[in-house]
Amino acid sequence: MAWNIKKLGQEDPRRVVHSLKVGLALTLVSTLYYLSLSKTFGVDAIWAVMTVVLVFEFSVGATLGKGLNRGMATLLAGGLSIGAHHLAKLTGHIGQPILILFLVFLQATISTFLRFFPKIKARYDYGMLIFILTFSMITVSGFRQDQILELAHKRLSTVSIGAAACVIVSIVVFPVWAGEDLHNLIALNIEKLGNSLEGFGDEYFKRTGGEESKDDKKFLEGYKSVLNSKNSEESLANFAAWEPCHGRFPFRHPWKLYLKVGTLARECAYRIQALNGCLNADIQASSEVSNIIQEACTKMSRESGKSLKELALAIKIMVQPSSADSHIENAKSAAKNIKSLLKSGIWEDIDLLKVIPGVTVASILIDVVTYTEKISESIYELASKAQFKSVEPTLSPKKLHSGQNQSVKSAQIVNCPDVGINVRESTLPSPPSENSSAPKASKQSMGVQI
Amino acid sequence: MAWNIKKLGQEDPRRVVHSLKVGLALTLVSTLYYLSLSKTFGVDAIWAVMTVVLVFEFSVGATLGKGLNRGMATLLAGGLSIGAHHLAKLTGHIGQPILILFLVFLQATISTFLRFFPKIKARYDYGMLIFILTFSMITVSGFRQDQILELAHKRLSTVSIGAAACVIVSIVVFPVWAGEDLHNLIALNIEKLGNSLEGFGDEYFKRTGGEESKDDKKFLEGYKSVLNSKNSEESLANFAAWEPCHGRFPFRHPWKLYLKVGTLARECAYRIQALNGCLNADIQASSEVSNIIQEACTKMSRESGKSLKELALAIKIMVQPSSADSHIENAKSAAKNIKSLLKSGIWEDIDLLKVIPGVTVASILIDVVTYTEKISESIYELASKAQFKSVEPTLSPKKLHSGQNQSVKSAQIVNCPDVGINVRESTLPSPPSENSSAPKASKQSMGVQI
Repeated sequence: MAWNIKKLGQEDPRRVVHSLKVGLALTLVSTLYYLSLSKTFGVDAIWAVMTVVLVFEFSVGATLGKGLNRGMATLLAGGLSIGAHHLAKLTGHIGQPILILFLVFLQATISTFLRFFPKIKARYDYGMLIFILTFSMITVSGFRQDQILELAHKRLSTVSIGAAACVIVSIVVFPVWAGEDLHNLIALNIEKLGNSLEGFGDEYFKRTGGEESKDDKKFLEGYKSVLNSKNSEESLANFAAWEPCHGRFPFRHPWKLYLKVGTLARECAYRIQALNGCLNADIQASSEVSNIIQEACTKMSRESGKSLKELALAIKIMVQPSSADSHIENAKSAAKNIKSLLKSGIWEDIDLLKVIPGVTVASILIDVVTYTEKISESIYELASKAQFKSVEPTLSPKKLHSGQNQSVKSAQIVNCPDVGINVRESTLPSPPSENSSAPKASKQSMGVQI
Repeated sequence: MAWNIKKLGQEDPRRVVHSLKVGLALTLVSTLYYLSLSKTFGVDAIWAVMTVVLVFEFSVGATLGKGLNRGMATLLAGGLSIGAHHLAKLTGHIGQPILILFLVFLQATISTFLRFFPKIKARYDYGMLIFILTFSMITVSGFRQDQILELAHKRLSTVSIGAAACVIVSIVVFPVWAGEDLHNLIALNIEKLGNSLEGFGDEYFKRTGGEESKDDKKFLEGYKSVLNSKNSEESLANFAAWEPCHGRFPFRHPWKLYLKVGTLARECAYRIQALNGCLNADIQASSEVSNIIQEACTKMSRESGKSLKELALAIKIMVQPSSADSHIENAKSAAKNIKSLLKSGIWEDIDLLKVIPGVTVASILIDVVTYTEKISESIYELASKAQFKSVEPTLSPKKLHSGQNQSVKSAQIVNCPDVGINVRESTLPSPPSENSSAPKASKQSMGVQI
């Protein structure tokens, strides 16, 4: 148990910080309750405390989204319930409860149905719930209390105080930005694909050569977490849409484009999954076949792996991904080579069954090169929409890496002088993780401060 | 907008029913509030209404899970907060608020951190939230009111009434069982794979033959929704674990095994995705290659498709999946054939580049046959753990289909005489749907009542 707790905290220290932040916000509002709220609002002041528990989420975007949803829904439901109350009053002593019950039924049914709309579900689900809650609560209880305006006013004030406390603590104390998480997650996923690909060629031909590698080859399976990252990407993008300008990301940063890159990365991961199947297949390419295709295949996997890692780096430090272009060209020329190799008469004397495993690997790799190019194009689109800084194309890749930091830094200083930039550049292969979740995204790389 | 609403309702009519059920439960409890609750519990009676809004979920399992979570968490937090209150009293006038604030901070921090544990998150997340909420609310407000025992008692009673109303309405009025949904979803997913596979062979060789098929080939893409069904499968399995015996499913039905079948189905879907890539590739197999491999490939795809459909049917009507065995054997013998074909000297005169697309398709199909067998094994395991009825192996597949209904019916009548069984047997290819969600699962098949 203790070991589990330690592991969970070490996997992402932000979890510990988040727990402390919730405790802090709750204690803050409770203190406020003792000092002044309960004198002003009486029993209803407890709503401020409750709001903190219900609204505080892991990322700023989720907290803001929930807080705004809760605030707006309470306001709207409060207004409508006052209207409903006045309407009910007109119907006399007997009609009043019946009309109120009917209105409660009607709004609950309609609002519940609206929650099924995918767009509403993604962004306003919590607001719809609070709308039903507040409307029912005020109309039903207001019927007895007859102080409905006061109740609505109290509830709105206390909810606002609670939500404000959440948002402030969430933003001021070690903020976790969903947008930044999404940015890092996408970069990390592409980097994982790059690592898996880069190592694949060598590993495959080592095995067909009969060598059993004893090193830890887990990084080859890093792509696996990409296969199932769709949901976390989508929810992060939804949360990010609520977030204001933060760090390197302006308000209305093109978060949707990250989803496009993510989808292509997933398509590429499916291909790498197929490659990995070849790695563990019963029948391996014979050594004579290996000798023929090894060079081009290794080059395709290594170069597309490298280009993906360059692309990941370009996303991370937010520059135009032009440094990946040369690797993509290399991979494409290798693909061209292997195609002409396959066309040549070299195969005529070889048993077809021995050729197949190698040829399968080659054709999947050709496909991977195509997807690498597509990913690169989508990242170019992202870079232009998000106005990533451009780097002089004359710089050599070596120079680029040392030069970029400089140029990014100065560019950033103009935009957001008060916000430090963390560029995390991982040089180690990322450990694979089946359940990689968003919060883990940036943890797995080592921080290089610019 | 009106069109959207209609479409949403038609896609799954249970959404409309669910909305009406929420309205009904809320109106019921509101009526109860007017008639007696508000006299007994005063202002706190409104908690019954709020509980309905917060606890009522789409499926019985989700509602039960939330209701039990809420009830247990309220009870536990109520007890602990009374203890905390007594402890705080001992510390005197000044120490009391400080100790209470400290306890609120402590429990909020610990409980929030516990929510990160995957197992707790899956089943008790809502309970943890309510625990923090109730504990904070009672200790903080109790400090002023000094009637803490009464508050705790009132809150527990009203929450119980609200939760009970939800559970009753959820079970009595057109219940939606998460377990049944999971069962149907897994069967539907396997059927989709079967449809995609069954049609693949013919379609592929039609295209390589230069024919452009004009029919709607959307069913070939049915597998796509399987790629991303992991999350809905897991949440349905979590909800199903809360559900009591219903229909054909006893309490403690092996829901976890469905997840195993689902995972294998997804692995198979990745392969079908690769096949579909071949279908749309630029370079197609030449006609001379097609002629050689067509028969065996078509047989592999058709027979494994048929076996998957038989397996899906076996899950649906809950019988031993023995009717799929013969198709799997056929597919395996076709795989054997193609392997020896590839070994033969037949290829020597053909340009390798023309051979590759066809050979790639063949080798993926061989892989698919392997996965079909794995799926079959996992379904056998499910069938034995879940005690599916066995059918005499001497029955021909034709007979089986008409005979099964009879045998299942009589078997069911012994177990659960009061519950009608819906066996949905879809004969039409299921329309593909990227966003296929659990609630849609059984809608896409036509009901055949037994």
